Amino acid sequence: MTQSIDETVDSLAIRWHSNRLSLLDQRALPHASDWIVYDDAASVSQAIRDMVVRGAPAIGITAAYGLALEAIKLGHSANAASLRSALDVLATSRPTAVNLFWALARMEKIIGEQQGEQLVTALTREAREIHREDRRMNEKMAAFGATLLTQNGSVYTHCNTGALATGGHGTALGIIRTAWSNGQIDGVYAGETRPWLQGARLTSWELMQDNIPVTLVVDSAAGHLMQQGKISAVIVGADRISANGDTVNKIGTYNLAVLAQHHGIPFIVAAPISTIDSTLASGGLIEIEQRNGNEISRLGSQSIAPNNVNAYNPAFDMTPAALISAIVTERGVIAEPNAVKMTAHLRA
Amino acid sequence: MTQSIDETVDSLAIRWHSNRLSLLDQRALPHASDWIVYDDAASVSQAIRDMVVRGAPAIGITAAYGLALEAIKLGHSANAASLRSALDVLATSRPTAVNLFWALARMEKIIGEQQGEQLVTALTREAREIHREDRRMNEKMAAFGATLLTQNGSVYTHCNTGALATGGHGTALGIIRTAWSNGQIDGVYAGETRPWLQGARLTSWELMQDNIPVTLVVDSAAGHLMQQGKISAVIVGADRISANGDTVNKIGTYNLAVLAQHHGIPFIVAAPISTIDSTLASGGLIEIEQRNGNEISRLGSQSIAPNNVNAYNPAFDMTPAALISAIVTERGVIAEPNAVKMTAHLRA
Repeated sequence: MTQSIDETVDSLAIRWHSNRLSLLDQRALPHASDWIVYDDAASVSQAIRDMVVRGAPAIGITAAYGLALEAIKLGHSANAASLRSALDVLATSRPTAVNLFWALARMEKIIGEQQGEQLVTALTREAREIHREDRRMNEKMAAFGATLLTQNGSVYTHCNTGALATGGHGTALGIIRTAWSNGQIDGVYAGETRPWLQGARLTSWELMQDNIPVTLVVDSAAGHLMQQGKISAVIVGADRISANGDTVNKIGTYNLAVLAQHHGIPFIVAAPISTIDSTLASGGLIEIEQRNGNEISRLGSQSIAPNNVNAYNPAFDMTPAALISAIVTERGVIAEPNAVKMTAHLRA
Repeated sequence: MTQSIDETVDSLAIRWHSNRLSLLDQRALPHASDWIVYDDAASVSQAIRDMVVRGAPAIGITAAYGLALEAIKLGHSANAASLRSALDVLATSRPTAVNLFWALARMEKIIGEQQGEQLVTALTREAREIHREDRRMNEKMAAFGATLLTQNGSVYTHCNTGALATGGHGTALGIIRTAWSNGQIDGVYAGETRPWLQGARLTSWELMQDNIPVTLVVDSAAGHLMQQGKISAVIVGADRISANGDTVNKIGTYNLAVLAQHHGIPFIVAAPISTIDSTLASGGLIEIEQRNGNEISRLGSQSIAPNNVNAYNPAFDMTPAALISAIVTERGVIAEPNAVKMTAHLRA
């Protein structure tokens, strides 16, 4: 039994090995590669909250491992009752990425079926499977998404949707990787993605590792690039998609969608099915996480605004389906998404 | 004669006193108020280049003083020939703000008419007059601009167009100050304005000094704020306006104009007549300054992106007149600007 739960599963920022979870501390990238080891649910939840790990699919995978760690700790006393508080703690780590709740729902289903060492094994296996599945889904999304890039030119992306945000090579960035190796794109413009700078710190780093030409810009240069005809498509990920295709993603995504529409440029969202929350009819119902204003007024050790300035720091925004040219999942492409097409896609 | 050139003219960031120019180092704000004293044209030009002083009107005023300083240094040998290289150096300080060339053209006209100590006095007087005039123009713009704010709610502004950017209380920010004291607005959202963070460092500081409620946001939150109905108008400044009303201003201005149009929100540009370059038919002809990519990849002492990342750093972008609801100058309001209306306004 211990043999089977001891398997290693590895991706760029998440490593399961010897029944322990290691996370690459994404707050320190690109200048330091610090791995932090976790062995219980509470510390994993804190890591998600503190953005040691981020990206909707990666958050889901990490939360699943968090519950597996708690089960390992409990051993023969692992059961629905003893795991309840760990489940609750993990579920409140961050509010927006639905992959978190999706992954925990998968784990919870198993808890209802078994207990003790058998449950420990089953939960560990399920978490690893969620991790491995995500890699396979990335590959499928990349193949489907690359078919949408028919014009030459460069693509624009926002935040980080790559290997650091997933269990594989990425959602939007997975499509970009495939399109690049197919010779379909000239390069990538990465918006720096204030306030956390995931574009500057993570996306440009990932693309440079793969020798894909990347040009970093401030987020507010996107319109200027489009006006000059430099962008053939915008490709982003998603933290939650409602039943009609409205998409909540990193703050700034909505700006890009409006700009893309104004310039007649395709706006593509890439996300696994697990990102779709079909319980919510539209995006306005999705909770937007509000984070501390000091993430804007401070940068590392530096204060970059007056002390005590009032800052408003929504982590996400909502892009209505009407502005989205296509949603790409592991099952295919939903062109011009709406509620009817989304429902059909989920049933396919 | 020395008596007349020794007059003091003072605004928040530019001080002419005892025949010396002092500039408040805007790179160090809001955490330090360092004044730097200048006594020749070359060092003034470098200060403009290095953004010790910034903001189109302030650049014009500073360049005029730069030439006056050079004349004072030359004394009785001041004349058209001896001042030529100083004029040239000042004119190449930065390429986009036309107020620079406008102010130097006023100075050059005087050089053609006089020489020696008489010229020194005349140039010094003209520079002071450019400084004082700017204050009066700010006041007129504020009165005209405030009439446009008919809805309640908050206004959104970008970069810094206040007392730090001008010789008075500001262009766009001057309108905002007047609208606030008239009780016409609830408060101000300031976009942080990457990469130089003029919104975070300067605008929020200026507004906090005046007890005007300001909320700092990342630039890419503008769409989200508009979508939620929080913004009643966007008000920005300009670095150069072409004969048809196309406006070049701080990078990100164009994004805001597209977003404002999408949401049916008035988009207002405030700038003195000296910002209008009627020699250029349209905005596409205006040179956009390209600055070093390390202004994006570094922040103060911190590196915030991979070493050697390729970054594209245009300092400005161009907003077509069709997206502008109104241009406000010291002569009044040009609603829905176009070439015909602009020409009529300039002749008025």
